[in-house]
Amino acid sequence: MSAGLHFINVRLPHREDLCLYELKAEVGKWVSVHRQDRFLDAWESGASRLMVPHQAGSDLKRLADADCIDLQGGMMLPGLVDCHMHLDKAFSLEQVSNRSGTLHEAILSYSHAVQTFSKEQLAERMLTAARMALSYGTTTIRSHLDFPVHLGREVAFRTIEAALEVREKLKGSMSIQYALMVPFRGNHEAADEAIEEALRMGIDVLGGAPHLADDPEREIGRIFRLAERFGVPIDLHADESDNPGKKTVLSIAEHTIRYGYQGRVTADHLCSLSAMTENDAQLVMAKMKEAGLNAVTLPAVNMYLQGREDRGLVRRGTTRIRELLAEGIPLAAASDNIQDPFHPFGRGDLIQIAQITSYAAHMGSEQDLVQLLRMITDTPAEITGCDEYGIEEGHDCNFVVTDASDVTQLLSGTKMSRWVYASGKWQSALHTAQTFASELVT
Amino acid sequence: MSAGLHFINVRLPHREDLCLYELKAEVGKWVSVHRQDRFLDAWESGASRLMVPHQAGSDLKRLADADCIDLQGGMMLPGLVDCHMHLDKAFSLEQVSNRSGTLHEAILSYSHAVQTFSKEQLAERMLTAARMALSYGTTTIRSHLDFPVHLGREVAFRTIEAALEVREKLKGSMSIQYALMVPFRGNHEAADEAIEEALRMGIDVLGGAPHLADDPEREIGRIFRLAERFGVPIDLHADESDNPGKKTVLSIAEHTIRYGYQGRVTADHLCSLSAMTENDAQLVMAKMKEAGLNAVTLPAVNMYLQGREDRGLVRRGTTRIRELLAEGIPLAAASDNIQDPFHPFGRGDLIQIAQITSYAAHMGSEQDLVQLLRMITDTPAEITGCDEYGIEEGHDCNFVVTDASDVTQLLSGTKMSRWVYASGKWQSALHTAQTFASELVT
Repeated sequence: MSAGLHFINVRLPHREDLCLYELKAEVGKWVSVHRQDRFLDAWESGASRLMVPHQAGSDLKRLADADCIDLQGGMMLPGLVDCHMHLDKAFSLEQVSNRSGTLHEAILSYSHAVQTFSKEQLAERMLTAARMALSYGTTTIRSHLDFPVHLGREVAFRTIEAALEVREKLKGSMSIQYALMVPFRGNHEAADEAIEEALRMGIDVLGGAPHLADDPEREIGRIFRLAERFGVPIDLHADESDNPGKKTVLSIAEHTIRYGYQGRVTADHLCSLSAMTENDAQLVMAKMKEAGLNAVTLPAVNMYLQGREDRGLVRRGTTRIRELLAEGIPLAAASDNIQDPFHPFGRGDLIQIAQITSYAAHMGSEQDLVQLLRMITDTPAEITGCDEYGIEEGHDCNFVVTDASDVTQLLSGTKMSRWVYASGKWQSALHTAQTFASELVT
Repeated sequence: MSAGLHFINVRLPHREDLCLYELKAEVGKWVSVHRQDRFLDAWESGASRLMVPHQAGSDLKRLADADCIDLQGGMMLPGLVDCHMHLDKAFSLEQVSNRSGTLHEAILSYSHAVQTFSKEQLAERMLTAARMALSYGTTTIRSHLDFPVHLGREVAFRTIEAALEVREKLKGSMSIQYALMVPFRGNHEAADEAIEEALRMGIDVLGGAPHLADDPEREIGRIFRLAERFGVPIDLHADESDNPGKKTVLSIAEHTIRYGYQGRVTADHLCSLSAMTENDAQLVMAKMKEAGLNAVTLPAVNMYLQGREDRGLVRRGTTRIRELLAEGIPLAAASDNIQDPFHPFGRGDLIQIAQITSYAAHMGSEQDLVQLLRMITDTPAEITGCDEYGIEEGHDCNFVVTDASDVTQLLSGTKMSRWVYASGKWQSALHTAQTFASELVT
């Protein structure tokens, strides 16, 4: 394995230019990121062991052994950041069905089923989901975790223990943060004590879905008190509903200001924002901005679950994506659920999520495509507090190499291969090879 | 190469059961399709050269040389049928931009640009698009072709000649039908003469977009007269609009009945059907049913182009997918445009289209998933008049083998590999291989 990294003929689409770059890294840090004035030929790299990713295929050793990697115009992105997953629920669809396809049935059925999952089962599914995300280029995950203390401490802590084991197993491969779903059912005192214990064990963030509680205002207050006490950020499911009257995000914003938590609070989903009048939506977005809230759209799950009561003109179900961006509110796009009762599809692939976002929000111009990439890189990196993020001199080497030479190829899935580097080594190779009979003949 | 085909441990999802099957074919025809009572071990196949598709990877020869192929529970689908593409426009995005992202700008810009495309350019792009579709499992395509006689006969026939050359080149690989977009601009007499010539050259179907003409009724009448005169089927873009007043499908239905063309007319898009009142929509669907119309939804392009004037609750833009299916109207899903000004994404992959349909129409139940598969196999096969279609004894061998063991894996893209067989041989292999560093260490 060579000590450094050297790349030529690299496209860096988040730089908004079409230039090619030459990149060098030493001991896990980028030491130079230079524009090339033209396409470099292999011999110009001065490398004795030059490698093109497609030649390496899925052989990570060949990539590691190269002293120069020629991307031939392929794109490199910083390691993708999926800031809203539910690793603990992933791949539970086989055990937890959802006949109506509604959010309501999904919540009920999962709550019944979770009691039957062993810690080992949970850990195995979480590991599979996290590694699948890694294989598509995700190197940082924030996962929400169910914490149903009202079903018994043992049930609630089973998920926590499994999650912490998975993080430990993957610590040389990727970064994982956990947000605890603060339960609003049952005895609050017992729950708060259990939450304190979970935070001590290593949970990073307080989450929850206060819009589902009987008294959302009270729940939000409770979550902020707990978060302040333990000095952790807040990341809440907010107004995942078709009802324009759901505006708990206003209360979240007010609490954020009151607690001086600006920049440390994230509101996810915000589907009802699309259902509000223009005037109400403007007021809500102004308040979000005032409070320095971050926002996350989960387009796959919202398209799948929302708008089910509509007839004829069926709403898309996502939040006001373009409007939030226009307001300058940091908006990330994330995976949410993977093959579970909330969402039968998904594979933890943020490129696929960016594509679904582009359909959901009519984003197809060149500028839009760059914006879509930011929604799965820089913005969620900021939300999750990644240090030294991005392909910049002095920053950590953490990236995914693709065989797509532009964002259209990447989002359309025309080019599928991905090679992922993080934590000081090549972590994963996903390589697609293609043959046509007609090519064999000629 | 072996003379016959022999498969074991095959799933056939369109049969709506979870059994495994053993299949045999001789001289390009299925001779036996039998349920297995259990998973078969390799030695039970009696084969001396057994092959698992993943071992063959992208090496078609290894598949061809095997005397038995063990799918190990992977799914086989009949060759997919994409009944609405625009091969001639595919991959023109680089040359024809669309800043506003509207249908209107796309039509205008393409009309300007088409005059500058050489026959060779057109043929090359069409060939790339058709073969890309083949690689994802499509073995039959119906492509619409622009025919702008008002820009000059030479311009119009350039596309036709390119298209016919491409079909000739691919005739040992896949089936292609062409539908001519009957032009409604310019001199009708000259156009009708040119259309007659194009039909003589080998165009199969009459198409067009009469809802865009000043007098749609007159255009529809003209297309039916021409179609009857030459005895060809009709396939029309219909009401690709957000305006609920667009109901040219009613006139199409009336003409179908008047000309005795039941079963031979297809109406594509039908976006305005979603915008109509429930009552109007019911009347339109009843009329469609009475006329024996086929319908095609183009969810990727309609999601991308439609609903752009909506604010807040943005419509999905597709037709009434669930309602048309409930009425028993044959409804296929198809690709439409690929990386052109009408749609910057797409790759001619009907599995991807089925996934987008599932989001667009809230289709996620087990029954829905089987329905989605029908919309890219049996239904478009019927619409395009494929003979002996499907994996049945006595029928032609025409299929795609996947590494997905259920429809969820297939639609979510968790399993991506495809091996395609048509016209008596293995045509294409698209193989995805994956490695994790953590697996190398352990």
